[in-house]
Amino acid sequence: MSGNKAVAYKEPGVVEVIDTPYPEFELKDGPGVNPANVGRKVPHGAILRTVSTNICGSDQHMVRGRTTAPAGLVLGHEITGEVIEVGPDVEFVKVGDIVSVPFNIACGRCRNCKEGKTGICLNVNPDRPGSAYGYVDMGGWVGGQAEYVLVPYADWNLLVFPDREQALEKILDLTMLSDIFPTGFHGAYTAGVRPGSTVYVAGAGPVGIAAAVGAQLLGAAAVLVGDLNPERLAQVRSLGFESVDVSKGDPGEQIEQILGVPEVDAAVDAVGFEARGHGSDSGHEAPATVLNSLFTVTAAGGGVGIPGLYVTGDPGGVDEAAKVGSLSLRLGLGWAKSLSFTTGQCPVMKYNRQLMMAILHDKVQIAKAVNATPIGLDDAPQGYADFDKGAPRKYVLNPNGYIKN
Amino acid sequence: MSGNKAVAYKEPGVVEVIDTPYPEFELKDGPGVNPANVGRKVPHGAILRTVSTNICGSDQHMVRGRTTAPAGLVLGHEITGEVIEVGPDVEFVKVGDIVSVPFNIACGRCRNCKEGKTGICLNVNPDRPGSAYGYVDMGGWVGGQAEYVLVPYADWNLLVFPDREQALEKILDLTMLSDIFPTGFHGAYTAGVRPGSTVYVAGAGPVGIAAAVGAQLLGAAAVLVGDLNPERLAQVRSLGFESVDVSKGDPGEQIEQILGVPEVDAAVDAVGFEARGHGSDSGHEAPATVLNSLFTVTAAGGGVGIPGLYVTGDPGGVDEAAKVGSLSLRLGLGWAKSLSFTTGQCPVMKYNRQLMMAILHDKVQIAKAVNATPIGLDDAPQGYADFDKGAPRKYVLNPNGYIKN
Amino acid sequence: MSGNKAVAYKEPGVVEVIDTPYPEFELKDGPGVNPANVGRKVPHGAILRTVSTNICGSDQHMVRGRTTAPAGLVLGHEITGEVIEVGPDVEFVKVGDIVSVPFNIACGRCRNCKEGKTGICLNVNPDRPGSAYGYVDMGGWVGGQAEYVLVPYADWNLLVFPDREQALEKILDLTMLSDIFPTGFHGAYTAGVRPGSTVYVAGAGPVGIAAAVGAQLLGAAAVLVGDLNPERLAQVRSLGFESVDVSKGDPGEQIEQILGVPEVDAAVDAVGFEARGHGSDSGHEAPATVLNSLFTVTAAGGGVGIPGLYVTGDPGGVDEAAKVGSLSLRLGLGWAKSLSFTTGQCPVMKYNRQLMMAILHDKVQIAKAVNATPIGLDDAPQGYADFDKGAPRKYVLNPNGYIKN
Amino acid sequence: MSGNKAVAYKEPGVVEVIDTPYPEFELKDGPGVNPANVGRKVPHGAILRTVSTNICGSDQHMVRGRTTAPAGLVLGHEITGEVIEVGPDVEFVKVGDIVSVPFNIACGRCRNCKEGKTGICLNVNPDRPGSAYGYVDMGGWVGGQAEYVLVPYADWNLLVFPDREQALEKILDLTMLSDIFPTGFHGAYTAGVRPGSTVYVAGAGPVGIAAAVGAQLLGAAAVLVGDLNPERLAQVRSLGFESVDVSKGDPGEQIEQILGVPEVDAAVDAVGFEARGHGSDSGHEAPATVLNSLFTVTAAGGGVGIPGLYVTGDPGGVDEAAKVGSLSLRLGLGWAKSLSFTTGQCPVMKYNRQLMMAILHDKVQIAKAVNATPIGLDDAPQGYADFDKGAPRKYVLNPNGYIKN
Repeated sequence: MSGNKAVAYKEPGVVEVIDTPYPEFELKDGPGVNPANVGRKVPHGAILRTVSTNICGSDQHMVRGRTTAPAGLVLGHEITGEVIEVGPDVEFVKVGDIVSVPFNIACGRCRNCKEGKTGICLNVNPDRPGSAYGYVDMGGWVGGQAEYVLVPYADWNLLVFPDREQALEKILDLTMLSDIFPTGFHGAYTAGVRPGSTVYVAGAGPVGIAAAVGAQLLGAAAVLVGDLNPERLAQVRSLGFESVDVSKGDPGEQIEQILGVPEVDAAVDAVGFEARGHGSDSGHEAPATVLNSLFTVTAAGGGVGIPGLYVTGDPGGVDEAAKVGSLSLRLGLGWAKSLSFTTGQCPVMKYNRQLMMAILHDKVQIAKAVNATPIGLDDAPQGYADFDKGAPRKYVLNPNGYIKN
Repeated sequence: MSGNKAVAYKEPGVVEVIDTPYPEFELKDGPGVNPANVGRKVPHGAILRTVSTNICGSDQHMVRGRTTAPAGLVLGHEITGEVIEVGPDVEFVKVGDIVSVPFNIACGRCRNCKEGKTGICLNVNPDRPGSAYGYVDMGGWVGGQAEYVLVPYADWNLLVFPDREQALEKILDLTMLSDIFPTGFHGAYTAGVRPGSTVYVAGAGPVGIAAAVGAQLLGAAAVLVGDLNPERLAQVRSLGFESVDVSKGDPGEQIEQILGVPEVDAAVDAVGFEARGHGSDSGHEAPATVLNSLFTVTAAGGGVGIPGLYVTGDPGGVDEAAKVGSLSLRLGLGWAKSLSFTTGQCPVMKYNRQLMMAILHDKVQIAKAVNATPIGLDDAPQGYADFDKGAPRKYVLNPNGYIKN
Repeated sequence: MSGNKAVAYKEPGVVEVIDTPYPEFELKDGPGVNPANVGRKVPHGAILRTVSTNICGSDQHMVRGRTTAPAGLVLGHEITGEVIEVGPDVEFVKVGDIVSVPFNIACGRCRNCKEGKTGICLNVNPDRPGSAYGYVDMGGWVGGQAEYVLVPYADWNLLVFPDREQALEKILDLTMLSDIFPTGFHGAYTAGVRPGSTVYVAGAGPVGIAAAVGAQLLGAAAVLVGDLNPERLAQVRSLGFESVDVSKGDPGEQIEQILGVPEVDAAVDAVGFEARGHGSDSGHEAPATVLNSLFTVTAAGGGVGIPGLYVTGDPGGVDEAAKVGSLSLRLGLGWAKSLSFTTGQCPVMKYNRQLMMAILHDKVQIAKAVNATPIGLDDAPQGYADFDKGAPRKYVLNPNGYIKN
Repeated sequence: MSGNKAVAYKEPGVVEVIDTPYPEFELKDGPGVNPANVGRKVPHGAILRTVSTNICGSDQHMVRGRTTAPAGLVLGHEITGEVIEVGPDVEFVKVGDIVSVPFNIACGRCRNCKEGKTGICLNVNPDRPGSAYGYVDMGGWVGGQAEYVLVPYADWNLLVFPDREQALEKILDLTMLSDIFPTGFHGAYTAGVRPGSTVYVAGAGPVGIAAAVGAQLLGAAAVLVGDLNPERLAQVRSLGFESVDVSKGDPGEQIEQILGVPEVDAAVDAVGFEARGHGSDSGHEAPATVLNSLFTVTAAGGGVGIPGLYVTGDPGGVDEAAKVGSLSLRLGLGWAKSLSFTTGQCPVMKYNRQLMMAILHDKVQIAKAVNATPIGLDDAPQGYADFDKGAPRKYVLNPNGYIKN
């Protein structure tokens, strides 16, 4: 157990599989580790042998060079694992448990955690509230696209699956609990989706599909999903959702063709800051496009959930405003319609247990919906490349052979 | 249009079809009309030709002689109709609209209506907050198991279906919007059901089944329904829910067999005050049985929705306490578990539009679930008798031939 | 009763008192009346003799020429009156009642009204959801800065004070129920203020003060109010709130001096689209200043209530973006902090009854807080001018001499 | 530091001050310790030197012999202390911190804790969800009416006051954060109290007064408090609340005299299972009296908060039903009025931080309201006796001389 193969960011457009040390119950110095976190003891942690770990669209922001992520940063914040060691402060999680790791790292001891706001924990990231594994400016917790990974505050953070065999059997569904299923669900939930709602989701990547599935689980009457990518739109239709092709222009007209009115009760932004334009503008980035179109198509009194990532600094932004995370938003329109907006990281713990129950009782097939595709750890570079080209797949790394199919 | 055939209560165990006057825009004196309501003008009303009108379990309380309902009271509070006349104050509802009538009569002008609490409108029943068509002690508004019916405050009360043809095609589903589908849904909703919940519904009559369907629409992971009647339990299973046979005893043990734990996250009482005992006590009435069993099987921190009817006076109650609506409840147990309880009439308007959307978009098949069975108005006496014997059916009267299948 | 003196907009910077016709139960043609509303019958209306009617900051947008309001438009959407006539459809409001009129006109019969969203009623403004008296692009309902005014859907819209004498005695407080007290309260409420919160309110005009009083009523531990105007800041301090002088720069530093941290739990924008810059930029308009500063000073996980008006078109906007209601907002910052935002007209009916109770039981002194200053109808032009200069007063017109003090 | 003077239950009616061992980071065997908890390691714990610890009405149930509490049980679940030692797993709480201890013991690691339901933690009491210090059938955690006390899961459970000097200065207010202030507030909050509400609180003991203060902090327009004890009623009036003397009969008539109507929007039961009758029945125990009177005086649609303790077993109960925690409740009446009910232990952590803020910013004077009366540890037996007689005081033990006044 002396090594730990892992996927690391090398330079814009390049990730590679490297050898890293097997984790200890301490956060050691390394690429991207905040100096104030170096040497932090983690007696409350657990070391997991990774069962599955997924490539996420938000990893792509780093890989595309849109952030200040340093070379050598080990990636991966979507982690499911088997507990193989626990620190002395761990009381309830046991060696042998198969567990889902919320991508938000949280202490379970600060004011925000006590209020359930685990996406903005005050104690894990010296820079600002909130953290994640394997992500730039998030404190330096080592990513989980690796054979082994350390999870701090294990009793608080980990969701233990009730049955090992069942968990491994449904692993391609359960692996989505670490991030995208709760994140998409959070988008739908904070948009106010409820039984009978009509919903428009911008973006048919994995988070968008997860938002659509989440909306369905919340009882939505009609779920429409918009994207520019024909393959992703085909995937949308194959799942029984309605597709909206925004390469043809703003979504209102197509929404009207489907619903009879050009508006929906609730809308979700599952795209974020790297949005491209609609219609003839779809060839270039236009970061406010999605939000402004949602202001247009959300009915008065509606809600907009914004799980798509917006950042405070974007070196590759299209203009000076975008570089500091400012967008030109039609707030006047939103105000006239009494809209409300919810932003930020999904606090995964708020939803993962209930979504696990829905999976275990066969109420949702999230793996099928996002086209979960297991690949070996060594295939991660290819997976990143394919995903970046818009493959309608969710790549699931299988570093230790737990995934059998 | 001078007559109006209607179903009326005659004496305990007996209903009959009688001739009554065609409605006018005034509440005339008649059996059960509160003197303070006699002569009340209804310029805000609409006269409907009944499309469908269902027999309800709460009608049975009157028919069994468990209330002070007078002979001649026209029954029926589950009404769907076609608007054929509107009063001068009606502005938005139009002649020809196919509409669902919430069973709660509400003015749309009092404090409670303004807060959405249409089940306890202050202006329609001189005796107390809240009213319903064709029901004892509810002000005297004439029931809708008839060819024609007057609906007051039509712009406020009526839910207009968007398309006539579509409405008539789905009429057996849409007819459930006037009462049982919202009522069952309200039970599940107020019990706190959400995606991933485990739910136990006491009672497999139409409201219980509607609660189960409502729980499913809210995303429940597992829905269990308990009853004494084998036919109803078979219906439960045929719908994909789990059945709990309470003739075998309290539900906890069977719940444990199904879920692995003897508790659920949320529970619904869809039985009400005429509950019979469980297990060897099932041969006689024991009004607190259901609630006390729900206190036992609801997990700590859970919610109990109580759409089942409990009354302030029950001449046929099993003892002096029951006669005044008092029950011996294990409050100490409920308190130790931090349970919460919601009682009362479902405010139908709070839910009917969203549930209509779910029906129109084929997200639920409530008619199939409750085994909707259309019969002629003249067959109502037989329908009452069969329903009273526990037939696993929901009888839908078809007084004007709108229902074609 | 053949005439009706009223305050009308004449041209940028000028209002005048004119003679207009006494209202009838019909919306007649006139300046700013939407053609589709001309001739609309109002049998559900009440004619009020105005008891008090206040000058509002949002009137100033029209008077400054920042809108397309036509000459002759009768102003006034903050109305309290005595009912002197009711239409034939009015059942519960009585002649002689002293009533508060929510500034939002609502039908009480559409989907949004049934959901309590009276700020976006679907039936009163042919242009878009939502309406108000005496306001451009709001359907053309005649303003109430007049001796008499017509209120449609009277049973739904009017809040009847329980006792005439008591109402007239507390009229300077109760007059604030038509708009600014609920509007400010809504800002605080939607920002998530609760007992123990720390709150920053941007803007010390009447709505800002009302938000501060609302925050206090909601139990806030500390309420800070920022403005550029020294007189208004002095008023803030005299009420026991903390003042923040944004002419000295962004509020964070002053907030830190007061609270020990540079952040608050909740923030309210009571300024809107005519915001001026902070610090050395305070000499000119900078419409995104307030919102961006609130993104900065609201703690992670906090809420931002936005009762301040933002518009879809502003001919006088500082740049092309502002002219169409677009603002350059630091969404990336807001997202990183998981903030949520609520915009739009306050649905007055949601709050006015409870705030009336607080006034009648002497729990709040809103008149004193906003420095309510009664003046005659003929003094309205002077009142508009003084208010526009930033007088720390709320002018209350007294057209019929009801206000005695 | 070898000893630890403490207050222990001896026999019905008798408490005494005894010598006990100084705490260690382990739960040792002793009176009332659940066998499954004996020897439990507490590396996550903190040892506090008690700053203040209050006598609670729920302690009285044990002292009166109404429970199965064993002789020698050290009492006390209302604890404020100075941290003098921390276990190796404690990361954020520091020696020297002045802290408030929620009376509910919670692990911060189970499903319920993660959902904020700390009153029903699954990991601290082998018998059932939920625990407390020094209380029978709660797992055996040693009480804090002592010089020193062990608090498990210190980072999770403890609320650290921001400033030591300020904390000691306001200690008589802050000491109420461990139980009665949150508990009373919870009663008001779960009853649905909001700005403008009218509220009736049954019981003018410390929890009832705290509920009244809580209602006031939530913005209630009128707060009425009922009791049988003239001294307590005088205390109620001295605080500006309205008093209702239930020795004169059911509260409805007096409520009507005060409010003009015999009903309130929200009601709180701050009495619990040892309730005595009203009016001529006030000489004897009648456990359902309070709840049934609240069903009567709560307006339709209202809420009832039930922080008053109801138990699953009461050896001294007035009849067989009471002995097992069953009450004859007028559920039919409650149902007809669509009431909702919330029971159970207050989850203190949900409220204590915000109430601390209200205290620190001088928004509430809870110590004055409940007549906080510091006494020495040796005076505890006298305090228990006086409190049992209905002294309108809240006794605060001062074991280590921190309280100077």
